[in-house]
Amino acid sequence: VTRWKFTIEYKGAGYAGWQRQDALPSIQQSIEEAIFKFCQQDIRLYVAGRTDAGVHARGQVAHADIALKKEMSGHEIAKAINAHLRPQSIAVIKAEIVPDDFHARFHAVNKLYHYRIISRSAFLTIDDGLAWQINRPLDAAAMHYAAQVLIGQHDFSAFRDSNCQAKSPVKTMRKIDVTARDYDGVGGWEIIIAAQSQSFLHHQMRNITGTLIKVGKGEWNAADVKKILESRDRASAGPTAPPEGLYLMRIDY
Amino acid sequence: VTRWKFTIEYKGAGYAGWQRQDALPSIQQSIEEAIFKFCQQDIRLYVAGRTDAGVHARGQVAHADIALKKEMSGHEIAKAINAHLRPQSIAVIKAEIVPDDFHARFHAVNKLYHYRIISRSAFLTIDDGLAWQINRPLDAAAMHYAAQVLIGQHDFSAFRDSNCQAKSPVKTMRKIDVTARDYDGVGGWEIIIAAQSQSFLHHQMRNITGTLIKVGKGEWNAADVKKILESRDRASAGPTAPPEGLYLMRIDY
Repeated sequence: VTRWKFTIEYKGAGYAGWQRQDALPSIQQSIEEAIFKFCQQDIRLYVAGRTDAGVHARGQVAHADIALKKEMSGHEIAKAINAHLRPQSIAVIKAEIVPDDFHARFHAVNKLYHYRIISRSAFLTIDDGLAWQINRPLDAAAMHYAAQVLIGQHDFSAFRDSNCQAKSPVKTMRKIDVTARDYDGVGGWEIIIAAQSQSFLHHQMRNITGTLIKVGKGEWNAADVKKILESRDRASAGPTAPPEGLYLMRIDY
Repeated sequence: VTRWKFTIEYKGAGYAGWQRQDALPSIQQSIEEAIFKFCQQDIRLYVAGRTDAGVHARGQVAHADIALKKEMSGHEIAKAINAHLRPQSIAVIKAEIVPDDFHARFHAVNKLYHYRIISRSAFLTIDDGLAWQINRPLDAAAMHYAAQVLIGQHDFSAFRDSNCQAKSPVKTMRKIDVTARDYDGVGGWEIIIAAQSQSFLHHQMRNITGTLIKVGKGEWNAADVKKILESRDRASAGPTAPPEGLYLMRIDY
């Protein structure tokens, strides 16, 4: 038996999220079934970060123990699994052997999420489903400034979903940057909220985004975000941003 | 009657291209019908560059003469047309009044096309349909070097589709750059071929791409591309690259 680490990319649309669920398609089930079709082994994938319905991943990580009948390279095993995943919007982009004690979730030291916003009047065409379109200008510099109050170790209860199963609401935000760049050459802007933490609470990134959007619109400022954080009250923060703008970008070990 | 210039964005999938065709959906028909629904005028759009089936646009330009019953801003007219375009993958991203003698096609002085290639083993998920995936490494520096032989005024017959209706195969390539950047963090590369010319022959960009791909694979070099160009023989050049990687980015006036 060999422990494999898989780096996985997916478009979240049409899936109920990472985790297996009765009667709903999930990323986990799709990959586990593709591995079964390839090697007839009923394995279980352990994932770094479960993503919600509709959330995308560019660098999700999961591990599994597989007993192969013959030796295969990472390239070969990824290709074999992908042959059974296609044409689903899920692909193994890297497969590598790791030590037997490697754990995708417990050994993750850092996660990078991006939330992608397009600020313009027209609806999205090429990027439909791949970003959150906001129908008005946003002050990205104000959003970045306000986001800095979230840096460090805090009780993030104000940004935590009521269904969150984490034992503690205390997390350490390592870095959070809001950047803006020209999107369409005619006044539209692409705004990325990039956040790094060892782990995130359920909906934390989407609730922070919904709050920073209100800063971008001029309704709130950095002092308000600080008050919201300190309130530990979910009701004081902004709404939950939709899943289609959220990307799990990278897991560091 | 006022002449309007429209900047238009679309995802090409599912359309037979810009131009109206019997019994096939086209970008032109969709927008003309949306304008009719909004102002009950049976107008005709004149476009800067007709794109083929499946080709995308981030900055297509077309003009039309419209007699509005009341004065409207560009923002208002774009919003009104988009209300009738949605949920199609076509949007007017800017509408502006231009002088009565403005012509989207005849007054264009420069067009910028991007051809987007993802070089990696795994198939595409998030960018499925938005780039051409090539299943092996490409030497982007060699592609860029070879592309420079196309700069300047040449007879581009070697890269011209047999259905091309242009009077002359002579065009002036102003600039063509091949750039590469990390795509997925695990060895995949995104390669963009960016080309500028006042106008392009039918399939010119896609045939150049199919030829440069062979350079990227090491099958041809810059001297070969020069010979192909000078041969004026379509059969000597590479295959036509698929439409899903091609983007009409910008028209300059």
